[in-house]
Amino acid sequence: MADGEFDLIRRHFSRPAPPGVLGVGDDCALLPTGPGAMAISTDLLVEGRHFFSDVDPAALGHKSLAVNLSDLAAMGAQPAGFVLGLALPRIDHDFLAGFARGMYALADRHACPLIGGDTTRGQDGIVISITIFGTVAPGDALRRDGARPDDDIWVSGCLGDADIALRLLLGERGGDAGELAAVTSASGTSAPDLFPPDLDRAAMLATTRRALEWPEPRVALGQGLRGVACAALDISDGLLQDLGHVLTASGVGARVDADAVPVSPAVAALPVPLRRLAALSGGDVYELCFTAAPGSRARVIAAAAAAGVPVTRIGQITAAPGLRLVDASGDPIDPLPHGGYDHFA
Amino acid sequence: MADGEFDLIRRHFSRPAPPGVLGVGDDCALLPTGPGAMAISTDLLVEGRHFFSDVDPAALGHKSLAVNLSDLAAMGAQPAGFVLGLALPRIDHDFLAGFARGMYALADRHACPLIGGDTTRGQDGIVISITIFGTVAPGDALRRDGARPDDDIWVSGCLGDADIALRLLLGERGGDAGELAAVTSASGTSAPDLFPPDLDRAAMLATTRRALEWPEPRVALGQGLRGVACAALDISDGLLQDLGHVLTASGVGARVDADAVPVSPAVAALPVPLRRLAALSGGDVYELCFTAAPGSRARVIAAAAAAGVPVTRIGQITAAPGLRLVDASGDPIDPLPHGGYDHFA
Repeated sequence: MADGEFDLIRRHFSRPAPPGVLGVGDDCALLPTGPGAMAISTDLLVEGRHFFSDVDPAALGHKSLAVNLSDLAAMGAQPAGFVLGLALPRIDHDFLAGFARGMYALADRHACPLIGGDTTRGQDGIVISITIFGTVAPGDALRRDGARPDDDIWVSGCLGDADIALRLLLGERGGDAGELAAVTSASGTSAPDLFPPDLDRAAMLATTRRALEWPEPRVALGQGLRGVACAALDISDGLLQDLGHVLTASGVGARVDADAVPVSPAVAALPVPLRRLAALSGGDVYELCFTAAPGSRARVIAAAAAAGVPVTRIGQITAAPGLRLVDASGDPIDPLPHGGYDHFA
Repeated sequence: MADGEFDLIRRHFSRPAPPGVLGVGDDCALLPTGPGAMAISTDLLVEGRHFFSDVDPAALGHKSLAVNLSDLAAMGAQPAGFVLGLALPRIDHDFLAGFARGMYALADRHACPLIGGDTTRGQDGIVISITIFGTVAPGDALRRDGARPDDDIWVSGCLGDADIALRLLLGERGGDAGELAAVTSASGTSAPDLFPPDLDRAAMLATTRRALEWPEPRVALGQGLRGVACAALDISDGLLQDLGHVLTASGVGARVDADAVPVSPAVAALPVPLRRLAALSGGDVYELCFTAAPGSRARVIAAAAAAGVPVTRIGQITAAPGLRLVDASGDPIDPLPHGGYDHFA
């Protein structure tokens, strides 16, 4: 019996669709719609570039969906479903079982069913393609082009852990890092090792790794910010680069207090240059960066409390273009060596 | 200046979105919706498996979108938009320009805008991921599970050309066929060469190649069959295998007249075993196979005429399960050596 596409889908990806949804098994899935808009995002993850070959398959399943849910969060959309494309060099049922477990666990928490997909044998390296759908009233969507002068700039959660974990994992791999140097990260895998010589690297990795491998998409916060935030996006390529997209789209500038950017206690204990690099330019964060009028501070804090996610003010939008970085004393800081992650750098 | 992701998107894939649609450039695209359902399909195409490395990039752009439009056609859905994921081993602007040209030309003909995407450097081999969206009233959708005993079985267009072209292209490549043996085709690339020794292969390839590289999705026909056809799908893996999905989903059987399956004059001139193999098991066809009550024949023919696509009756649905093949005299034919294409065979 051929262990083919149909068996693979039946074995790992054939949960029944929710009522009213036609899921896997026809030419198309059918997702009920109403008046409003469908928010749609798509992401590709490539082995050796976006994830290590020896990553925990459950973590990979989680993260593949998490990065897409994070895009819905950044628009304030309600998850409705997703489709999955998998190009696999070979069929590995242990891998697929773990991948499906991690993916479904996150999907269930957000009531976001898998409604279709395509699997095929690929060439070297796994390629994962997810396209996700959410619902939002068009006027409520949190776009990138809504920032206005004097808006506060906020971020959720802590930044920098994922970047530190990635640096440590790349360092561990030493000579193999060439192959992996392209793994998603903003802050320069070619940069020198900035860790203190006496750092307990294993302990630091144990503390920071979860942020890299199990990012938590801020779906509830994004929805809570509808009608409150003026502009929003999720930080995937590094705070400075991603905030730059908001500034460009909105035709404004910003002043950011580098030392106000929230970091975990572990990252806070690192030397200042490394901490700033990780917090400001580290990618793979999947926290939200958003702007809101100063008069909306109480509403922002209430939305964050309702979502159970801390938020921190890190600067202001300015009418003058450009992004000015300052330290805690308000003194200008030189731009960082790496502005952010480029998928083709 | 880095020739990075943003430049690539700006240069090749940044046409403005239609009014009311938020396209490329934010965390999500926003597609307006109304009461009804969104039909959604996703397909992966992998270099060396679904297409040759030296394929005309414009043909590849066309076909990548065509196979997805064909899934909408098979549901009777109206195209609304699509997202594109590209994992590329390197940036090749000539390739991307040709790919975009072929893709947009087809997209424009079906008013199906590109509304979002993701590009990344991949490993060896191009991977193309398209997810497409269409609108359809849920009760109107042409599903696989609606075939009923005594329904006529119909197919659109001609079958077999793409399979013949693929066999000839693989034959041309001789020793390289190992790498390419997995390219999408149903009817057995490992089968012996069944072509007559005196065949003008170049002329046959010239005649059949367009069906392989520039398939025409039957979007208008699919919409015209809403309320007429009982069940439908598009033929991607081979008529017998795909019809088998309808039979399984509908809990019925079928009797198919192998010699009634429409083929082009070029394919009709081939020896009977090769003709039948190509027509019945050849993949990559993207014609519709559908069933309709005998009382609907005039409506089927009217819908086909309105869409400008020929349709042919090739058999009947039976209450008894299983698929019986007969020849023009009604005598049973043995099953073919290959039932259809398996993406992991």
